[in-house]
Amino acid sequence: MKDLTQNDADALIAKLGAAARDAAIVLAEATAERKHAALISAADAIIASEDAILDANAEDMRFAEAKGLSPSMLDRLKLDPARIRAMAEGLRSVAAQPDPVGRVLTEWDRPNGLHIQRVATPLGVIGVIYESRPNVTADAAALALKSGNAVILRGGSESLHSSAAIHKALATGLKDAGLPEAAIQLVPTRDREAVAALLRAQGLIDVIVPRGGKGLVGLVQREARVPVFAHLEGICHVYADGDADLEKARRVVLNSKTRRTGICGAAECLLIDRAFFAKHGGVLVQDLLDAGVEVRADGELSAISGTVAADPSDFGQEFLDKIIAVKLVDGVPDAITHIRRYGSGHTESILTENDATAERFFKGLDSAILMRNASTQFADGGEFGMGAEIGIATGKMHARGPVGAEQLTSFKYLVTGDGTVRT
Amino acid sequence: MKDLTQNDADALIAKLGAAARDAAIVLAEATAERKHAALISAADAIIASEDAILDANAEDMRFAEAKGLSPSMLDRLKLDPARIRAMAEGLRSVAAQPDPVGRVLTEWDRPNGLHIQRVATPLGVIGVIYESRPNVTADAAALALKSGNAVILRGGSESLHSSAAIHKALATGLKDAGLPEAAIQLVPTRDREAVAALLRAQGLIDVIVPRGGKGLVGLVQREARVPVFAHLEGICHVYADGDADLEKARRVVLNSKTRRTGICGAAECLLIDRAFFAKHGGVLVQDLLDAGVEVRADGELSAISGTVAADPSDFGQEFLDKIIAVKLVDGVPDAITHIRRYGSGHTESILTENDATAERFFKGLDSAILMRNASTQFADGGEFGMGAEIGIATGKMHARGPVGAEQLTSFKYLVTGDGTVRT
Repeated sequence: MKDLTQNDADALIAKLGAAARDAAIVLAEATAERKHAALISAADAIIASEDAILDANAEDMRFAEAKGLSPSMLDRLKLDPARIRAMAEGLRSVAAQPDPVGRVLTEWDRPNGLHIQRVATPLGVIGVIYESRPNVTADAAALALKSGNAVILRGGSESLHSSAAIHKALATGLKDAGLPEAAIQLVPTRDREAVAALLRAQGLIDVIVPRGGKGLVGLVQREARVPVFAHLEGICHVYADGDADLEKARRVVLNSKTRRTGICGAAECLLIDRAFFAKHGGVLVQDLLDAGVEVRADGELSAISGTVAADPSDFGQEFLDKIIAVKLVDGVPDAITHIRRYGSGHTESILTENDATAERFFKGLDSAILMRNASTQFADGGEFGMGAEIGIATGKMHARGPVGAEQLTSFKYLVTGDGTVRT
Repeated sequence: MKDLTQNDADALIAKLGAAARDAAIVLAEATAERKHAALISAADAIIASEDAILDANAEDMRFAEAKGLSPSMLDRLKLDPARIRAMAEGLRSVAAQPDPVGRVLTEWDRPNGLHIQRVATPLGVIGVIYESRPNVTADAAALALKSGNAVILRGGSESLHSSAAIHKALATGLKDAGLPEAAIQLVPTRDREAVAALLRAQGLIDVIVPRGGKGLVGLVQREARVPVFAHLEGICHVYADGDADLEKARRVVLNSKTRRTGICGAAECLLIDRAFFAKHGGVLVQDLLDAGVEVRADGELSAISGTVAADPSDFGQEFLDKIIAVKLVDGVPDAITHIRRYGSGHTESILTENDATAERFFKGLDSAILMRNASTQFADGGEFGMGAEIGIATGKMHARGPVGAEQLTSFKYLVTGDGTVRT
């Protein structure tokens, strides 16, 4: 949908951005208690608004069905009482986290008597661009508020009414706590030009977080003139080393692939050390086949009955489905080379009982998350204990891995002297 | 100077960038000892190459004089034995700092038995674009190497021969320590198109650090498609509160303005609380006048003999000279409002004995560095105890304030389980 001119869209975002910047100044000084109160009050308001949210969602569903959205898109859009309760729980769980703002990150004294502190501060204004899941409205707003940032939310056009109803409850929370309503703003239009305007809003928006598929994230990464926290793909690898414990390996491989196949932390490629294969044969492949996974096997692994021969393009693929590429490698150096070439820097796991081999894997790779004897499906802010995440970043600037409230902060230096001058 | 086509320049930077990325992989795994050895050996090589460096510098000086460079530019370009020794000392001082790579930044356990560590890693490849000071070649290379990053240096066209001679010594250090020579590369051309190519080298360069005047920094900030650590201006404020100690205030104001006027941490504006003025009159202004500073005074301060009346444009000006703008304000709230409006987010100092007032200043402002009873001239990585700095950043992403080796790192998560799967 495009009706707004570029100028109209820029003016709209400039207006939202200016209000957000003013709100950010108030938020930066807001006490932990006040932000906590706003989150709890917003959670209560979400529960109290269940009927209104469901009505709004029904309207969005009619629109989306008429538009012919896929069943999985419709499922993401759909709200029910359980999902509304989960949203409120999410707000309470973020509220319960320690406040990340004002923490003294480090401090030291200088020989001249100066005392220097590095103290966490909010980033400022965060833009969140997401697709059809309306719950992102609540999750992203909660993390932004917790970290003292103003947020401008731009939900998928399909979820406009649902997001507006959720936003109304969040506004109640802000109001109850005496915080400015512009702390959480929703872009009030389905027009796509508003997304383009957000992406070029240098000086108004400090960071953009896209939540959605590769199409959305790729667009944001290409077009944004402001910093972006994101991952384009989660091409996660599991490497079964010759020194792996067989039972742990079987458990972790199966869980990494099959627990949920549509999340970015799902394994897309299994690398099997020739030494492992010599000891244990194709057991890992057989487990996957037995679980109904399509196994695209390279080289001699394709001799295992039930597999299909891998195409070179299967390596470096994000299937997000019950499909996995498997390949034999010559120990950890070969695994590292493969992952460096085909990985997306998201999450990789090594299965080994050998500390030196694990260390080599940890040192030789530079993905955001490296695991040992653990499922790649743990790549998640909640599982990391961050309360929630606004997304997972594979860039190396500022935030990396699961982005929780702490990663939405910057810092400043506070220097105290006693009439101290530089000679 | 422009002879390269855009394609030629992109190809040149792609070649340097690919070599840098390969070197970065080796550097990321290099031990602290090896990097230390390379820095010490490079320092020795700089001392041993004194004659060659001076010869190269003489050639640059002839070129620069023929080009009609200003005396201050010529002074920045000029090397002598003392400046060469200082460069070698800089390398040794960076070597002596703790190695920032591999530090466990934080770690915690999860109820399911997972142990999570956040560990410092190099950023990757750093591009440094600088003007005529040839010593930046050594300083920037040292900080990049210490933090395990490869660096591509693009010095001012005037300093091409000096930088090449210094670079040769640095290469000796790398070679002696068995590190790849592509860890420190110099763009081998005066062509300006190479700068443009660096700025658009997404995927090859992880961050650009510009070192130089407002023209260079502004160009880099406008054009870069990769992240930039920089400050455009240092419009630093000193606020003399009504509760200031008079003698400390006199000392700090004078030092903040006059110690060196050409650095980014020099004060450009003095805000005097009306309560301070009522107690002490124009003593701070008189001190500045006595030190030969041109005082551009607002309102009733302009009645002080020797001042000139301030123009509105004097506020928010970076003079980098013996000039200061002064103004009366109504306490710390008014000072905060003024600084928020006119400051550049670099460094501000409050002079007060009142803890609550100081805290209000620290909370209400969001400059990279806030000081109390200390000279703004301390805004410097060396003075912060970082050994050296590659620059000062006023952005809020990743690095902020003085950028030392530690700020040139990112992190990754290392997660250890015991066959742990997600339910």
